[in-house]
Amino acid sequence: MEAKRIYNFNAGPAALPLPVLEEIQTSFLDFKGSGMSITEVSHRSKWFDDVINDAVERVKRILKLNDRYKVLFLQGGASMQFCMIPMNFIGDGETADYVDTGTWSTKAIKEAEIQGKNIRVAASSKDRNYAYIPSDIEFNKDAVFAHITSNNTIKGTQWNRFPETSGVPIVSDMSSDIFSRPVDIEKFGMIYAGAQKNMGPAGVCTVIIREDMLEKVPADIPTMLKYTTFAEKNSMFNTPPCFAIYTVQLVLKWLEETIGGLDKMAAINREKADILYGYMDESDFYSPTAAMDSRSFMNVTFRLPTEALEKTFVREAMENGLGGLKGHRSVGGCRASIYNPTPVEAINALVDFMKTFEKKNG
Amino acid sequence: MEAKRIYNFNAGPAALPLPVLEEIQTSFLDFKGSGMSITEVSHRSKWFDDVINDAVERVKRILKLNDRYKVLFLQGGASMQFCMIPMNFIGDGETADYVDTGTWSTKAIKEAEIQGKNIRVAASSKDRNYAYIPSDIEFNKDAVFAHITSNNTIKGTQWNRFPETSGVPIVSDMSSDIFSRPVDIEKFGMIYAGAQKNMGPAGVCTVIIREDMLEKVPADIPTMLKYTTFAEKNSMFNTPPCFAIYTVQLVLKWLEETIGGLDKMAAINREKADILYGYMDESDFYSPTAAMDSRSFMNVTFRLPTEALEKTFVREAMENGLGGLKGHRSVGGCRASIYNPTPVEAINALVDFMKTFEKKNG
Repeated sequence: MEAKRIYNFNAGPAALPLPVLEEIQTSFLDFKGSGMSITEVSHRSKWFDDVINDAVERVKRILKLNDRYKVLFLQGGASMQFCMIPMNFIGDGETADYVDTGTWSTKAIKEAEIQGKNIRVAASSKDRNYAYIPSDIEFNKDAVFAHITSNNTIKGTQWNRFPETSGVPIVSDMSSDIFSRPVDIEKFGMIYAGAQKNMGPAGVCTVIIREDMLEKVPADIPTMLKYTTFAEKNSMFNTPPCFAIYTVQLVLKWLEETIGGLDKMAAINREKADILYGYMDESDFYSPTAAMDSRSFMNVTFRLPTEALEKTFVREAMENGLGGLKGHRSVGGCRASIYNPTPVEAINALVDFMKTFEKKNG
Repeated sequence: MEAKRIYNFNAGPAALPLPVLEEIQTSFLDFKGSGMSITEVSHRSKWFDDVINDAVERVKRILKLNDRYKVLFLQGGASMQFCMIPMNFIGDGETADYVDTGTWSTKAIKEAEIQGKNIRVAASSKDRNYAYIPSDIEFNKDAVFAHITSNNTIKGTQWNRFPETSGVPIVSDMSSDIFSRPVDIEKFGMIYAGAQKNMGPAGVCTVIIREDMLEKVPADIPTMLKYTTFAEKNSMFNTPPCFAIYTVQLVLKWLEETIGGLDKMAAINREKADILYGYMDESDFYSPTAAMDSRSFMNVTFRLPTEALEKTFVREAMENGLGGLKGHRSVGGCRASIYNPTPVEAINALVDFMKTFEKKNG
């Protein structure tokens, strides 16, 4: 029986590539001839070693990492990183810069403050309700890192160019746009990303960390909160989230072998965003909420003329096989999350529906 | 094509009930008519709410919890709990008791010490290489909790009766025997268990916590390290490990509806252990390593006459479709992990193989 699938515009957990889901399904009772499900295989086995090592190597190839970077898989999502980052990197008498571009940045800042760490908000876009990304930021040259949120799922904004920090290592939450475009890795001390948007299911957070950052980790913090614990054990100090890592491995394989890498992925993502923003820019009915130069290519946030119409829009879209278009509960409106796995066909189907809806209600 | 399955005696990740794996496989591209995989469904959707709420209710019913207990699903495994427990419960000037019954207890103790918490090792079985469970322990009546490891996967020992603590709440790591037998919940302030043994895949840790323990949680620790954060948000402060929780839900459903609950499960587990220990007690070839009165019903550890024979045993067992029989790398020997999902047939197949192997090599 063919499964009936919808076009899924969820913000996360989000759509995964269909060939990845099909491979998981096919092999689910017998992984690679082991006679076990991937969920039953020991993390100390050759089978799982191959999975995690392949996932690590693919991250390195896809992002063109040099030997100074380690790739780790942790639990607890980006939210756990908000607490681990200041705990691991800001020592006594040291300070860090944070840029506040919305909910997730604000949460990262809060977790540094809870620990009594000395941080500074170097820039914020709160003055215009986070509808843009600040530019020309003066970073503190003595900061141990400069923290940014590369893409803001709720407000629909994205750093189109990463900031100049005069050598201060950028630490970036890239949960919602990792692997969506090439990055100049040399600028980054650490990149972290919950998998459930561009890279896999919920339950694993990818951390890419440079060796000089690892040298900052204090000896006297809890073992499970130290990056060195995971760096020294290839993410297997304790049992890792095996199934989530396996799914990430398959998504990365799809990205490399089916899509053809980050340049190709970025071109597809640009095409998808251009179709959707392009249509809305010509319409008086749909209004994108982000400033033009700060628009996210991953989370397209927009409003309709009234909240009542937005409600009808989301409901009728769902009835037409287009799911997940409701905006985040904290801001309302509509949002189409169009991460890597979302195909161009999904965007075309969405725009077709939007046109019909506009004709009927405009 | 029928999948070729082995009998899986892995210590964790471990065997899962075949009907659970089959249900996941069948619905993997279209979960409950959503048109999405369970890995793609939003954690804020009705679909996932039903999953997590059903999982919570089943834990409550299966363990006969009263209203004072909350059921949480966290990330980071039991190892993260080793750090969270002292952080959340041992305040300034307070003290806690720990019982040291092997590797995992020792790790739990270490994480309290790293934080400079005031703890006492109330009893230890280190004197006889952790081959037994201490009895007649004098607990400190002023301790905020008494920590035990109910089953020791590596040494193959298990608390057959929980200790008398004069009202001090027991905090127990039950990673490897939760849901294997009924427990007198009133004694426990908290029970925690990584799922990947008796309950699901790696990537989620179930925490059962009593309300008076929640009252101890300090306000000024990081958000993701506070039990109250998860208790207040039904484990969804941030994106939970959805797939792992879903699998746990299905395993609990199997335990309730197919097995018939904890009394039945305990009887089956006793039967399985009796078959295996019973055979070895009559054999001069296989020697169980745990003291008779401390034997684990979950992890049966044993030795053969020589290490060379153990190596051959593990290899030939694998060739005969019996996997995961190698002892933990820290102790050597052999180990058959026979958690809830391992059927009696698997034990019979193992004993048949053991007999043949003994005849050939004894």
